[in-house]
Amino acid sequence: MSNGKPPQQQNAQKPQKPQTAITPTRADNYPEWYLEVIKAADLAENSAVKGCMVIKPWGYALWENIQRVLDGMFKNTGHVNAYFPLFIPLSFLEKEAAHVEGFAKECAVVTHHRLEARNGKLVPVGELEEPLVVRPTSETIIGESFSKWVKSYRDLPLLINQWANVVRWEMRTRLFLRTTEFLWQEGHTAHATAEEAVEETMKMLGVYAEFAEQYMAIPVIQGEKTAGERFPGAVSTYCIEAMMQDRKALQAGTSHFLGQNFAKASGIEFQNEKGELVHAWTTSWGVSTRLVGAMIMTHADDDGMVIPPKLAQSHVVIIPVIQKDEVRQQVLDSCNALKKELQAQTFAGGPIRVHIDARDLGKGGGNKKWEWVKKGAPIRVELGPKDIEKGTLLVARRDQPSNDKSFPARAEFVSGIAATLQQIQDNLYDRALAFRKEHTRTIDTKDEFYAYFEAPKTKNPNDPTPIHAGFALTHFNGDPKLEAKIKDDLGVTVRCIPLGGGEPGTCPFTGEPSKQRVVWAKAY
Amino acid sequence: MSNGKPPQQQNAQKPQKPQTAITPTRADNYPEWYLEVIKAADLAENSAVKGCMVIKPWGYALWENIQRVLDGMFKNTGHVNAYFPLFIPLSFLEKEAAHVEGFAKECAVVTHHRLEARNGKLVPVGELEEPLVVRPTSETIIGESFSKWVKSYRDLPLLINQWANVVRWEMRTRLFLRTTEFLWQEGHTAHATAEEAVEETMKMLGVYAEFAEQYMAIPVIQGEKTAGERFPGAVSTYCIEAMMQDRKALQAGTSHFLGQNFAKASGIEFQNEKGELVHAWTTSWGVSTRLVGAMIMTHADDDGMVIPPKLAQSHVVIIPVIQKDEVRQQVLDSCNALKKELQAQTFAGGPIRVHIDARDLGKGGGNKKWEWVKKGAPIRVELGPKDIEKGTLLVARRDQPSNDKSFPARAEFVSGIAATLQQIQDNLYDRALAFRKEHTRTIDTKDEFYAYFEAPKTKNPNDPTPIHAGFALTHFNGDPKLEAKIKDDLGVTVRCIPLGGGEPGTCPFTGEPSKQRVVWAKAY
Repeated sequence: MSNGKPPQQQNAQKPQKPQTAITPTRADNYPEWYLEVIKAADLAENSAVKGCMVIKPWGYALWENIQRVLDGMFKNTGHVNAYFPLFIPLSFLEKEAAHVEGFAKECAVVTHHRLEARNGKLVPVGELEEPLVVRPTSETIIGESFSKWVKSYRDLPLLINQWANVVRWEMRTRLFLRTTEFLWQEGHTAHATAEEAVEETMKMLGVYAEFAEQYMAIPVIQGEKTAGERFPGAVSTYCIEAMMQDRKALQAGTSHFLGQNFAKASGIEFQNEKGELVHAWTTSWGVSTRLVGAMIMTHADDDGMVIPPKLAQSHVVIIPVIQKDEVRQQVLDSCNALKKELQAQTFAGGPIRVHIDARDLGKGGGNKKWEWVKKGAPIRVELGPKDIEKGTLLVARRDQPSNDKSFPARAEFVSGIAATLQQIQDNLYDRALAFRKEHTRTIDTKDEFYAYFEAPKTKNPNDPTPIHAGFALTHFNGDPKLEAKIKDDLGVTVRCIPLGGGEPGTCPFTGEPSKQRVVWAKAY
Repeated sequence: MSNGKPPQQQNAQKPQKPQTAITPTRADNYPEWYLEVIKAADLAENSAVKGCMVIKPWGYALWENIQRVLDGMFKNTGHVNAYFPLFIPLSFLEKEAAHVEGFAKECAVVTHHRLEARNGKLVPVGELEEPLVVRPTSETIIGESFSKWVKSYRDLPLLINQWANVVRWEMRTRLFLRTTEFLWQEGHTAHATAEEAVEETMKMLGVYAEFAEQYMAIPVIQGEKTAGERFPGAVSTYCIEAMMQDRKALQAGTSHFLGQNFAKASGIEFQNEKGELVHAWTTSWGVSTRLVGAMIMTHADDDGMVIPPKLAQSHVVIIPVIQKDEVRQQVLDSCNALKKELQAQTFAGGPIRVHIDARDLGKGGGNKKWEWVKKGAPIRVELGPKDIEKGTLLVARRDQPSNDKSFPARAEFVSGIAATLQQIQDNLYDRALAFRKEHTRTIDTKDEFYAYFEAPKTKNPNDPTPIHAGFALTHFNGDPKLEAKIKDDLGVTVRCIPLGGGEPGTCPFTGEPSKQRVVWAKAY
């Protein structure tokens, strides 16, 4: 079954270039490579509805695993799930001025509630008295409920999460990273004091960082956004930022301290212990199907997707090697036995997840090995009559070059499976962290900063993809106008002001004092 | 903590009537009782958006448990999850004539994609070239994907499920039973032959019946719908029907054999083994948040919700009895120890789920016992210093009268917990089955049939709720006009033609031959 690369690769014209399962490669055209990985791994595709994607089963399984783990983390931190309406009355959205300002340009609006055939064509009829917005986020509609649920300090804190779809009418979309409809979770909490709300905001940022690093194997920088990048209506927005393989930054999750802005807009008031009627303090926080895009752009390689073991639908894919019909039953039996042996082992709190690819693809019906390489299964095992005879297996790890393989004794492979999966998980994280370190520079002068981000944008003159510099750490006086000018000049922005502060210094752009260094980068 | 009923009930004016936590009772006003149970158990509430509900945490937890169990059953039968767009282009909906006819009157339509402030008021702008319908169901949008995914018989069967929200613009809504937006799952499958598609249709009907009976403790009749009740565009629709406590029928799940109707509409074609290009055969099947309504109307009583143990968020709720501050720590420690002892036991494949209600509600701050009765927790335990001394517990089962209690030895209670929960589960099912049997009549004459459904509609002349007769089993010649006349006359319809057939006989309305008896009832 492992007879090499797909034909078009084997016949490549330039033998000096390594053959890859994905064309173009990351170096050749990173944005195109990203889309080709999604296609080759069968993760998602564009739909007939502009900007809306279809998440295919292999991609949706990643989202299900993300949901399962995060949902457990939310419940362990005292949150419960609930569900609020998809539709928001226009009048609700208007209640918070900055909020509506931020979302008005990208709202899908429902105006009618019936269809009628007229001249053989369906037309919308039954106009609504008040148009409804398909939720772009739910602060205002959930705020309305909270205002009814909260009466006394004894009702607080209110710690709610919602798993839902949201719609933001995007003009330029990109599978997983920016789609008109996307899936997400949105936490919404209300507290008696500002301190408690801030504590919640930071706690959930920490949950996101832990999830990104421990499960997605993506190192992140936790920090606060500058005013220009704040969530519309928030007092402060915190985020986790990751470096993709094109060295651009991707915001992978946000946690907002909303102060009393939304509590005032929605009338979330309670009687405190002194008997005074006061407004609550609220937070909101969310991550979305964008995380799947982050995993692809962090771990995938020129042969396709690479899934971190903790989020893999199947930890191990077993390919039965059946060259003659006479051995079919023997090989399948041995594969099934191996599956059971592996399932008796545990990894990350559950049994090993095993898939046997027993499809009969017929002659020339496909190449299973390359299918699973492209889909990114962490471990591939091939098992045929000779392996049964010798008591060994062909084993390939997806974090290693695609043609590398080992031939461990079966018992040894089975007993070591959890350790191997953890090694892969750790390896992916370490590699991503090393990559980020390699492409992060501490800069102290304006000239070096401009040279860093203006440096040759591409290695290949025919390449439509610029190679981005990476992250720069500089001091910064915090002036929004200066930030805007740098964005105009170089296309880079402050991704975040990292938590934990650091030493004060001098802003290299103005010579003014700076409390700490900030992270600059181009961003998705 | 167990000092009796809420005050308004203790002071009731008519001592001869048993006190109840819910007013009105089922007998007094069944529809109103239903809404009061939902309110008292904190399951859901109406939102500011007409017809859309807010599912509150205690209600959403029921849906999460339904999802978890059903999702496992779907996966065990070979299905995988995926996600398709919320929006459907009008042109897609038009492809299947009967389908659009069925849904056109209740579609939310998105016509604009931006908001702009004009004269200080937000108005929709950015009109779409083609309006989008918020999915009422996804046959047409998923069909579009299937048409791309299916090329050869080797790609079949395609077994996909989606968990999603859908919108049907209902004029008369009722929490859980009929809401404009609701949550559901919709299975969509494509097959190479009609036989395989029919087999899938029946298999999933069986999964729904098993889930209803084994998990929701709701006995159901599996059967086929008559033409008038078929899903728009289906060749045949199968359903599970349950009897509610007002003796009306509730359709709790449907499974549709779609023939080649949607395959032709969406162009789902494949090359068969002979190399011919032919249309696939498809199915779809779904259950929704309506199931929560079905559980309430089957099991709840005049003291509130009664949750079947297998779907309960908490199997056991422990209330610490703390009358003096000095014993607080001792009691809480004992409660925590009990929780651990219980969690070491298993029920229905998982650990016992335990909640300690340690809230300090202050003086007159509420009555925990009645809160948990109304919320329907299967088992309530009260634990105070005297219980610790004696090694016993106060235990109350929600399937027994609300003031019944027992005082088992603690060790005995713990070791018997799984058996007790199973007894409650079985008791709820047996009770519902006995109720259905009691109110199902086999009828052989038209006069008896009309008398049955025309019988005194109410016990109480001031009662707005008629007491419905129940189910009637009669022979029927299958004439749609006759069915329509009976609906006009009595408001009852054929709920289903039960699977398994039965003896042929004579239609009591026409004297014509009938293949088997059918189920008649008033329905939700």
